[in-house]
This record gives sequence, C-alpha cells and structure tokens, in this order.
Amino acid sequence: MKIALAQLNYHVGDLVTNTTDIVLNIKKAQQFNVDLLIFSELSVCGYPPLDLLDYPGFVKKCLESVESIARICTDIGVIIGSPSFNENEKGKNLYNSAFFLYDGNIQSVHHKTLLPDYDIFDECRYFEPNNEFRIIDFKGKKIGIAICEDFWFSQPVANSFGRTLLYRESPMDKLMELNPDFVAGLVATPFAASRIEARKEVYMKNSEKYGIPLFVVNQTGANSDLVFEGGSLVINQKGEVFDRLAFFEEDFQIYELDEVTDTRAHGLKLNIKDPVDMTFQALVLGVRDFFYKLGFKKAIIGLSGGIDSAVTAVIAVKALGQKNVEALILPSRYTARDSLEDAVKLAETLGIGYHIIEIDRLFDLYTELLNPLFNNLPEDNTEQNIQARIRSNILMACSNKFGSVLLNTSNKSESAAGYSTLYGDMCGSLSVLGDVYKTRVYEIAGYINKNTEIIPEGIISRPPSAELKEDQKDSDDLPEYDLLDKILYQYIELNRSASEIKEAGLDPSSVDKTISLVNNSEYKRYQSPPVIRVSEKAFGYGRKIPLVGKF
Amino acid sequence: MKIALAQLNYHVGDLVTNTTDIVLNIKKAQQFNVDLLIFSELSVCGYPPLDLLDYPGFVKKCLESVESIARICTDIGVIIGSPSFNENEKGKNLYNSAFFLYDGNIQSVHHKTLLPDYDIFDECRYFEPNNEFRIIDFKGKKIGIAICEDFWFSQPVANSFGRTLLYRESPMDKLMELNPDFVAGLVATPFAASRIEARKEVYMKNSEKYGIPLFVVNQTGANSDLVFEGGSLVINQKGEVFDRLAFFEEDFQIYELDEVTDTRAHGLKLNIKDPVDMTFQALVLGVRDFFYKLGFKKAIIGLSGGIDSAVTAVIAVKALGQKNVEALILPSRYTARDSLEDAVKLAETLGIGYHIIEIDRLFDLYTELLNPLFNNLPEDNTEQNIQARIRSNILMACSNKFGSVLLNTSNKSESAAGYSTLYGDMCGSLSVLGDVYKTRVYEIAGYINKNTEIIPEGIISRPPSAELKEDQKDSDDLPEYDLLDKILYQYIELNRSASEIKEAGLDPSSVDKTISLVNNSEYKRYQSPPVIRVSEKAFGYGRKIPLVGKF
Repeated sequence: MKIALAQLNYHVGDLVTNTTDIVLNIKKAQQFNVDLLIFSELSVCGYPPLDLLDYPGFVKKCLESVESIARICTDIGVIIGSPSFNENEKGKNLYNSAFFLYDGNIQSVHHKTLLPDYDIFDECRYFEPNNEFRIIDFKGKKIGIAICEDFWFSQPVANSFGRTLLYRESPMDKLMELNPDFVAGLVATPFAASRIEARKEVYMKNSEKYGIPLFVVNQTGANSDLVFEGGSLVINQKGEVFDRLAFFEEDFQIYELDEVTDTRAHGLKLNIKDPVDMTFQALVLGVRDFFYKLGFKKAIIGLSGGIDSAVTAVIAVKALGQKNVEALILPSRYTARDSLEDAVKLAETLGIGYHIIEIDRLFDLYTELLNPLFNNLPEDNTEQNIQARIRSNILMACSNKFGSVLLNTSNKSESAAGYSTLYGDMCGSLSVLGDVYKTRVYEIAGYINKNTEIIPEGIISRPPSAELKEDQKDSDDLPEYDLLDKILYQYIELNRSASEIKEAGLDPSSVDKTISLVNNSEYKRYQSPPVIRVSEKAFGYGRKIPLVGKF
Repeated sequence: MKIALAQLNYHVGDLVTNTTDIVLNIKKAQQFNVDLLIFSELSVCGYPPLDLLDYPGFVKKCLESVESIARICTDIGVIIGSPSFNENEKGKNLYNSAFFLYDGNIQSVHHKTLLPDYDIFDECRYFEPNNEFRIIDFKGKKIGIAICEDFWFSQPVANSFGRTLLYRESPMDKLMELNPDFVAGLVATPFAASRIEARKEVYMKNSEKYGIPLFVVNQTGANSDLVFEGGSLVINQKGEVFDRLAFFEEDFQIYELDEVTDTRAHGLKLNIKDPVDMTFQALVLGVRDFFYKLGFKKAIIGLSGGIDSAVTAVIAVKALGQKNVEALILPSRYTARDSLEDAVKLAETLGIGYHIIEIDRLFDLYTELLNPLFNNLPEDNTEQNIQARIRSNILMACSNKFGSVLLNTSNKSESAAGYSTLYGDMCGSLSVLGDVYKTRVYEIAGYINKNTEIIPEGIISRPPSAELKEDQKDSDDLPEYDLLDKILYQYIELNRSASEIKEAGLDPSSVDKTISLVNNSEYKRYQSPPVIRVSEKAFGYGRKIPLVGKF
C-alpha cells in the first residue's frame, strides 16, 4: 500500500484556498498511484480557526468543502480534517473530526477524543470529545485514526503541578483494541523551540508501546502568533523514525507500507535540532506568512542601533527580501553617534532603503506646548515616553502612507518587565521578538553573524540602552539580563512563585523586583501586538493574567 | 434557621483583602446569630482568577485562606468558594469548589459540575468537573450546593446553533436525589444588559421544577472588563422571588428560613429593569473599580465635542468625582467652533478641570519632517491618523506626568468597523463605551439629560464626525448608525453569516460592507484597551477571531 503525507501551509478560515491546495495534492497523489493520502488536523479550515467555529455558517461551509473534495476521491483514499456538527442533543456543538473519503464519498467520520485546553489551546470551547472508536477497512488494511492530543495521554507531561497524567481516558488504548495495522495521525502542533524532540519522542513511544507504525502529518506555516513547524513523521512499528518531512515548509512524501514495516530496516539517526537555528527559522516563517496571508509585501522598521531592531531587520529581510524592507532611523539628542552610525551601517549591509528623521524639533515643540500644564515639574519617564511616541507616530505615518507594515522590535525580557513605552516602541502589527528573551536575542545575533559580520559588532558589544535620556543603560532599571531572564523563565514558563524561585538560588531582591515588574505591566501587554510564539509560554492569548488586583 | 447572604466586591487575586472582607462579614453574621452564611463563587480569590490558577503556589495560598477562615467559624456555618486541588491521578489539576466551614474546621468540599467554556468563560482550562454529589447535614436541615452554571442545565440556552441543551448531565437532577431542604447557590455572573431577567428566571424555574427554595449569592464589583451586577436572589419553593439584593453594590441580608418557606407568603413583583439605566450603572461601577483596584484616583479624558467623549466624561465624573477628572481639549483647524465650544461647556457644566492645546503646529511640523519622504503624494488617511496620534501623545504625556489614567472614548460601532486610529483615539487604559453601540450611546446621553441638560444639546444633535479633515462625517464612510448597529448586532452577538443577515431583510450592500470592515479590523482590536463588558458578546477575550486569513 502506497501512503502519502501532505504537509501543507493552510490559510486559517480561507476555505477556497485550502480546498484548492488539498485538491491539487490529491491530484498529485493520484498521478503517483497513491492508495492513501493523509492531511493534517482541521486541514479544510486551517488550525486554529478559533471563534470562526461559533459561526454555524462557517462550519457548514467547511462541510461543503469536505463533500466537494470527496467527489474527486474516486480511486484514492484520503483522510482530511474538518469541524463537524454534533448531532446529539447534548454536549458542545461541534466535533474536531477526521473524514475518510473514498469512492467519491465520505466513508466515515472520526472525532478527536482528548481536547487540549491550556496555554493557547481552547478546544473545549468548541468541541465535544469523542467516545466512539472505529477503524477504517481499506484495501485489506485496518487503519486507526488519532488526532493530535490523542497521542499524548500516557506520556509524562511537564506540568507545574508536578502531575504526569492530565487526561481522563487513553484514546490510544481504546483504538488499539480494534487492532489497526497502522495509525494515521492528524496533528497541528505549534512550534516551541524546547519541544521539538519531546514531540518526536511521544510518537516514538506510542509506536513502541503498541508495536504499530504511525504516519503523523503536521501542518506548516504561520498564523499571526502561531508557527507550525511541519516535520511530519513516519515511525515504524519498533518506535524508530523511518522518515521526517521538511521543517518550516510544505512537503509531500510517498511511502510503501511494506518498506516502513520491513523488520530488517533501521530507523534514521536524527541530529538534535539547534534551538537557536530553529527559532530563527520559525521567526522568519512567522514574518513571511503574516505578510503573505494578510496580502502585504512591505515592512517598515525603526532602527535604533540596538540589537533588537537589528535582529528584527535581518529576520524581515530574510522573510520578505531586501527590497521589501524599509528602515527609519529616528535619532534624538540622546542617540549616541555610534548607535546612529551602526544603524546606517546595518541598513547598508542589508541593502535596505533607509531615511533619517531627527525628532528633536518635535520633542521640543511638545515640551513647549505642554509647558503651561507641566510648569516646573521635574523631568521623568514622561519625557522619555513622548520621544518614543513621536517615533511611533512617524513610523505609523510611513506605514499608512506606503501600505507597509510596521514590525515591532521589542524582546520578551523588556516586554515582561514592562520596560517599554505603550503606543511608543510597543507599536507594530506583529512582534517578531516578543517571545525571545534578550539573552536568546544575542544568541540569534551570533547565529546571524556566524560566517560574516552582518550585524555590526558595536551593536552586539554596546551595553543595551533605550537612549531616551543622558547616559541611560537598561541595567540602571533592570537586573542584568542573564539574571533577569532566568527569573522570568521560572516565573512565566514554569509558573513558580517568588519563594520557589528564591529557593532555586536566585538573588531574592532581584526576584521580588522582577516579579513586581511583570505583575505591574500586565496592562501594557494587554495592548501589545500579536507575538510570534516560539516558546511554551508566550505573551498573548496563551497567558491570561487579571489586570486588576494584587497577587 | 437564620440564613445570611454576603454579596461582596472581591479583588481578584488579592487574598489578604478578600479574606479580611470575608472575616468581617462572618463577624457581623455572628453578631446577628446567623446560623448559615453564604458567600459567592470563588470568593476567596475573586472571579475570574484566570491564569493565576496555573500557579500552584497561588492555589495553596487560597486554601490557606480557607483554613484560616474556618478557624473563626466556630458557632456559625459558612459556605465560601475557592479553587482546590484535584487529588486524583487523572483529570485537570483543580476543582472549582465550595467549602462548608463549621466548628472551626472544613466540614465538606463540594465541586462545580458544569464548567462554562464559551465567550469569556474558560473553566475547562483549569477545572475538572465534579461527579460526586453530597449533602450538608446542618442543624436538622439538609443543604444542597450548586455553583453557578450547575443551575443552567435544563434551561433553553439561546445559541446560534439553535440547540437548547448544551451540557452532558444535569447536576440539579443529581443533587435533588439527595433530598435537600434548600440549595445554596454560589455564583459569579458578569453583567449583560440583556440577561438580567433571563438569569432571574433560570433560578425561578429551578426552584419551581424541584419545589425547593434557593439562596443564590452573586458577587458585585468590576474586574477590568467584567462587571458583576450583584442582585443576589432568595427564591421560595414555589419559584417566586422572596427577595433580591442590591444591584452594583455590596449587600448583606439575613432571612429566617421559615419565613421564606411560609406557604402563605407571596413572591415579590419585581419591575423589569431598564437596560439603559442598568448599562449606565454598570459602566460607572466598571470605571470606579478599575481605578480603585489598581490604586489610581484621577482620570484624564480627551474631549472632542462629540457624544462619545461627552458620555464617557459624565460616567467618569459619576464614578470618580468631578475633582478627579481632568479634560484635555485638543482642537485643530478641522475642529468646528461648535465642537470646541460644546466641549468647554460640558467641562464647565461637569465642573472638571480642562486645558486647551491646539495641535496644528505639531501637525505642520510632522508634515514638514515627513515631506522629503511623502513628496507630492496626495493626502489620505495618513494625515488624519497623524492628528489622532498627536492627541494621544499629549494625553498620554499628561497621564504619565500626573499619574492619571487615560480613559478611552471609542464606542462599539466604530471599534467594530475599525473606524478609529490605532495608537490614536484607540489609546487608553480602559475602554468605557467599547461594548456600547452608537445608538445605545445616544440612549445613554438621553438618560443623562433626562432631568437637566448636562450634555449640551449640540453634541447630541450634530451629525457624528471625526473632524480629521474638511467637512467630514461618519456617514461618508459608514452606513447610518441605525442600520450599522443592526447589522453588527446580528454578526457579532448572534453569529449570523452575511447571507443570513441579508435574509433577515437588511440592505445587502451595507451588510457586505459592514462585515468586511469588521473582519479587516481585527488587527486593530487585538491592540485595544480592555473593554467594560455590558453585552453578551464584547470585544476582548470573549471573542477570538483569527488575524490572518480570509473568511
């Protein structure tokens, strides 16, 4: 039996585009005489469709797409994902389903059992869990279907509560009672730099435990905040990787089932993926798809001469091409000559257009107009914020005039600490580095400069500064980034309390200060741009902290 | 048996303040020889604690609060709400629980069965549903406990999918098998202008169906986006309202059980609440608690001479007092003399401080500095947005300098249509009218002016305009608000598709235009301030639409 995996980049909600892509892949598979072609979870609508699922009309259109796709599946078996209606009287309105198409019709429907509801996942909001298992009998083989989280039951899940079993039932145990010959897995796993190998191992352990081959199809591409890595897997019945599809791009591969299950074959030895390299690639894809899917071409970036805007610019150029990236350099009297020169040098190295607009006259005019109100009050953050907001007004004016998209350049450390100006440097349609701690930004800069100096050395070696007042340094207001990032990681990713972080040996006063900065800046992050998620816990929909109250 | 209801205003996450309030109310009840005192859902931590529940340390502290409260419950029975740990191997980490305290100890724990997971609710994210029912035997009475959604099973739930039964099991049926004498209900129901009577009726129907009295305690107060109306209910065994507690404020009432169950007593005839009046009160509480709970006193508002900023100013004055509200009036060459004069008149009528800063010189300087880039390109939205962002920079500068909070003045219609400038008039820490359609804003203005003209008549009668270019009117770009709001309501609140809305008889081209405006402005609303929710579907966490993709 010839089995093909179609790892595609879906457009969430765009049923026409997705259906067309699916049909083209079915035609390709038909040309190669493929018996069974597998797509990923919710492929018809793309993952995650979010509250589009609250529109019954949208779900109806998804099902119409499934039916129209079924019509061309005359001589080929196809498994695709789509939401479907719960026809029972009780329970949630929908199922997260896989459809088996053959002979021009829908042959069977299989629902997802374990519905993830944590971090960015909220499937209990829409879907009723499955409680009936069925097998597909196809050309002499029995095929089981599992959808994403269904594989995860019996695996230790790292969890701040120290519990390893999160779910109520094991769908794989149930499915195995039906004795499938192999399992088709439809998944949609958003990228997290630390989880690539962990995911692979979950599939390998399932395969090993049940002695069964798995064909696991992931989607690729990015949908604003979420990047999907691809890397679909074929695992043999011994729990070894038979093949892995490309990362961060579409892929289509065909396998002979007998070759996968050949007991003499050895699994692939896969290198451990470098998280810095993978993060860089994920960010590039995140930027590229954001523009592509929203129909934009050109980006605009404010270059400060600092490392965050430099790394963001490199990612944008990689994603969109140098001719589609434009920089504004907006110096003030507080901008060091080195910063200005390095910003220019970077723009020239990258070959992107740039303009320099000095903001001092605007700043002075704001100060003059506000003087009757401010009187003789001493300077404070206000004056710094005015400068940041002058810059954002100029950047947004260029964005509006030229139809280019402003990229936000804040990193996760400063976003966490609230070390930023709301409506100032927090502006932008997409935050490229908002899920990348400062120490990792430096690692990415090193990765970028691995072979040639693209980012000027001075940008990397100069101590970080917002340059909004005389002789300012980030370390005047924040713990050193090495320490800050360690505290933030424990607080945000591991959900540890202040006392637990102190017990882990980190400087107590820095811990208290950092946590207080994080808690007191929730109101800023509430109005942040969407952040490309590359960790297990990004700011945005996956982390919902009350704005009001002390804790 | 003397039963008391404590309807309190909790501070989400602030366990010390909440515990103190709870203890003070227990002491008060002890003075009146109350037998049983009932608090609302998750009272120890306030509702909704959101992802604070992902911190095991936080849940531990909640349970420590429960234990410390139990110690003073020597001679009084107390029912309070708190998260608790799921000690089983499987399932979610926590339960949403009610604790019965007596004799200085925790006597029993009762978990919530039906976990809402729609709109702003996401309880499946944290909690395992209950599946064991138990009764409290106390002073010769059997007491059942139900938590919020537990009451809702068998009621028709308006749902865009046309289904009436949403849940898998009926907790009230199960609970009734244990033959309680009455039910203590711990609830936390966020305000929605259209749902006040519907909620009351759910409790009445439960009571009537099972022939049992209910004591239903809601919380009051606001937590950034959500306002809780209070209005706790005592319902007799005939399904009649015996008493209703105050709306939008704390309340404490004591009842003699025999009097509630006296078969000769008649229920109260309650007037239907006026949704405009209730919305106004909810918004006032929303503003007041946002400031109070975040520790702020003073608000700043940009007064344009339009109706939205006028209504916002009146609400702010009502919430915070005239001396705590300051206005900036920021005219340009496009500001009509009438608008300027009416803005001044309103500020003077309200007795709030105001300053006038003309923005033309700033606008001209931006234009001059951008000229080398913009060259001879024609004017477009860019120039309008620059003005809006100059205003926000000035407003935020005053906010930063004086520690006052900028209130956003956008209404739901313009927010839905994206008829606003991101980082311009979309700025502010809290959106007061972001869940109020323009037509309802006019109704609120009428309500405010009921007895005396507080809002100058010209503000109400002049056609709405952003005044960002010559002779501009909202109706140049948008359908008339009467029509626009009808379309928006069907699309946003009722989840109807374009074709369904057209079938309902609304102008087809306006429907298409409106839906396209809504879909294309999701990226703006992503960065909106939190919106005080007064409808069944506000923008914010309760409505998650993908930013990327066509639909």
